[in-house]
Amino acid sequence: MALITSVLSMRNLFVLSLALNVSLILRTMYEREQSHHWLSLETQKGQAVQETRLALSPTSSSSAATTQVNTQDGGEKILNLARGDPTMFEKYWRQMGDKATVVIPGWQHISYFSDVTNICWFLEPKFAKEVERVHKAVGNAVTEGRHIVVGTGSSQLYLAALYALSAHDLTEPVSVVSEAPYYSSYPSMTDCLKSGLYKWMGDARSFNKEGAYIELVTSPNNPDGHIRRSVVNRSEGILVHDLAYYWPQYTPISSPADHDLMLFTVSKSTGHAGMRIGWALVKDREIASRMTKFIELNTIGVSKDSQLRAAKILEVISDSSERAGSSAEGESFFEFSYNLMSERWKLLREAVEHSGSFSLPEFRPGFCTFLNRVSESQPAFAWMKCERDIEDCESFLQGHKIFTRGGKHFGVGTEYVRISMLDRDDNFHLLVKRLSAIHI
Amino acid sequence: MALITSVLSMRNLFVLSLALNVSLILRTMYEREQSHHWLSLETQKGQAVQETRLALSPTSSSSAATTQVNTQDGGEKILNLARGDPTMFEKYWRQMGDKATVVIPGWQHISYFSDVTNICWFLEPKFAKEVERVHKAVGNAVTEGRHIVVGTGSSQLYLAALYALSAHDLTEPVSVVSEAPYYSSYPSMTDCLKSGLYKWMGDARSFNKEGAYIELVTSPNNPDGHIRRSVVNRSEGILVHDLAYYWPQYTPISSPADHDLMLFTVSKSTGHAGMRIGWALVKDREIASRMTKFIELNTIGVSKDSQLRAAKILEVISDSSERAGSSAEGESFFEFSYNLMSERWKLLREAVEHSGSFSLPEFRPGFCTFLNRVSESQPAFAWMKCERDIEDCESFLQGHKIFTRGGKHFGVGTEYVRISMLDRDDNFHLLVKRLSAIHI
Repeated sequence: MALITSVLSMRNLFVLSLALNVSLILRTMYEREQSHHWLSLETQKGQAVQETRLALSPTSSSSAATTQVNTQDGGEKILNLARGDPTMFEKYWRQMGDKATVVIPGWQHISYFSDVTNICWFLEPKFAKEVERVHKAVGNAVTEGRHIVVGTGSSQLYLAALYALSAHDLTEPVSVVSEAPYYSSYPSMTDCLKSGLYKWMGDARSFNKEGAYIELVTSPNNPDGHIRRSVVNRSEGILVHDLAYYWPQYTPISSPADHDLMLFTVSKSTGHAGMRIGWALVKDREIASRMTKFIELNTIGVSKDSQLRAAKILEVISDSSERAGSSAEGESFFEFSYNLMSERWKLLREAVEHSGSFSLPEFRPGFCTFLNRVSESQPAFAWMKCERDIEDCESFLQGHKIFTRGGKHFGVGTEYVRISMLDRDDNFHLLVKRLSAIHI
Repeated sequence: MALITSVLSMRNLFVLSLALNVSLILRTMYEREQSHHWLSLETQKGQAVQETRLALSPTSSSSAATTQVNTQDGGEKILNLARGDPTMFEKYWRQMGDKATVVIPGWQHISYFSDVTNICWFLEPKFAKEVERVHKAVGNAVTEGRHIVVGTGSSQLYLAALYALSAHDLTEPVSVVSEAPYYSSYPSMTDCLKSGLYKWMGDARSFNKEGAYIELVTSPNNPDGHIRRSVVNRSEGILVHDLAYYWPQYTPISSPADHDLMLFTVSKSTGHAGMRIGWALVKDREIASRMTKFIELNTIGVSKDSQLRAAKILEVISDSSERAGSSAEGESFFEFSYNLMSERWKLLREAVEHSGSFSLPEFRPGFCTFLNRVSESQPAFAWMKCERDIEDCESFLQGHKIFTRGGKHFGVGTEYVRISMLDRDDNFHLLVKRLSAIHI
């Protein structure tokens, strides 16, 4: 009798759980229609995931819930890989222990100002020093003769660049373009305030308007991981290079990047998205000064606490890179991350091959001057295409409880999706397990 | 012989120093013409001050230079009180020692997300809890039934409010107004991107355009310290209350503020300007959601490190406030700050009276529910008027090496200046000494 009750309860729970998931998926799909921005979308999805977890696991706390994974996957769990939340790197930083800890007394760093002799007066000198050091250690960007501008993530620096590069006396806004597939947030970030200074004009390949323009070159590209060059090539153009992913774990470092305006961020290089710290390397003094002015007008500077923490994290990375080879101290950050990405891409490609329903971009290996050997491109996102007449890949995968971001957000067709490769281990393994099992 | 050489050297140095100061003042005045924004202006002035100091004190390091004060004032030092840098509070936080220290391990707070069940998904729960607690302890704002939105300083929240309150489908931008004298950054922050959503329309008293408008009510007011109410009073208006200075050290707390959208910041309440942390208390869920969306588009969230540090600082303040009266633990933060401001305003009024060349606003004392006694208004800025036919007060004071911000930046006449009351002790005492000695 006890057994029957137990079985009934489990069935009841299973049905209840299924119903809950269907309603959450429907709700999320409905909410998606209401929303145009990826992070709102993600939050709503995240909320659905969270609610599901909380419902299934009433003892889990809000903050702990996202780390809890049902490794006994009964297919219930909504897997949210639409965002690029770099939680994968947490493991490395746990291993580092106290080395990467910052301590900030209450009386320090009270002032608005960090260094009034610098064009970027809110730039912490220690952070600036570690930015220069890590680029030198990795060899991925020229810093000599550059001004460093710190931003609240590279998002703010992107907006600062638009402000700095726009001609404020023109009657019409400057055109902003990027080759599709482009970073899905560029359109909404550019146009959200209906600025009279700049305007999003879409795919750089089809751009044919006369006059000044700003071309965004993301290399390696988000979403597809390919190395990019500018495509418009007209004299009125100004280039902004978004090099968030030009680090050894993602792509072979061929030479130090040497462009006029380059953007970097700790989110993707070290994994510390929650710090909201990015930096720009800017050749022209006047442009650096105008970017600084934008950040004054926008947020009167950038968190000193996060700059100091970022400096510490970059210091640990440079220390570990300079030590590379001496095994006593453990792996360097980039070796650890490269190996993890390598393992993940191997598993993903096996799953996709086993399924037969999808395809992935192919990359040619290249010599990496940092690792001092031939290395692979293993992007932070998988840009996956649904094959076999699946027209809407995002919706199709949603049916399998895998949330991704569809191609139309990136200016291309719905047969593509972008999947984060940077989530925690358990989520990633669940992804490959599910993809592997899809056969059409 | 040695004596003569020594005297000559000192004279030479003095002349050199004078010449340097004159050239720096002239340069600053020239640069002021080129600049429209207060913080650029301040940076340039700060730079002048810094350069002077570095020139006079070649051993001083960049970061230490701003804390060095020539207490043997020979009239050489440029006193920059144009900005409201709240370094005065440093002293209290030094006294608190380890109590106010934060420790952040490298692996913590990596994710973009803080709490996906909250509308403001990047709001750290610990920070939200301490915001509610400090308002309850101080009694200066209603938090029940409010959504908290955290921002990179209240500047970002001001922009988020404009975005959230604008109707995005209108053909013309909504008018933004504030009663003069208004906060000098409102015009440039509002118009810097030539937004099609909102437009600065100046003094609320002379505003007579039909249609929707947003009125900014800063209370106590920056620059003049007076308690403010809305002045337009039309049905199409939406109010934003900037309550950065509604804390017991500046003004009597009469009752908990209970408006639809209220802005606060740690810069002025606790003195931690370098954190860049502000918060909004928002009654309407949809407005809170749109403000959150703006911050997503602008900076994809707000530094977690600074939120955690702000939570710790607010915790110490609430602890000290709840303990008030038990002398064993020392003064509460607000008692300490109130007494310091009280002493400073006393000294300033004495200096102004002694000089006879200036006047200051008068305030009526009021009952402060937090201090549980009648308390004074002692604003963070002195809004000073030059008397005796001095037409341009800012330039006049520059001649005495006191840098302030002139009335025209606040939408009024040049006979007024705003002077920061929150600088370090030595600078403040130099200010009163110099003002006291000016007789026309």
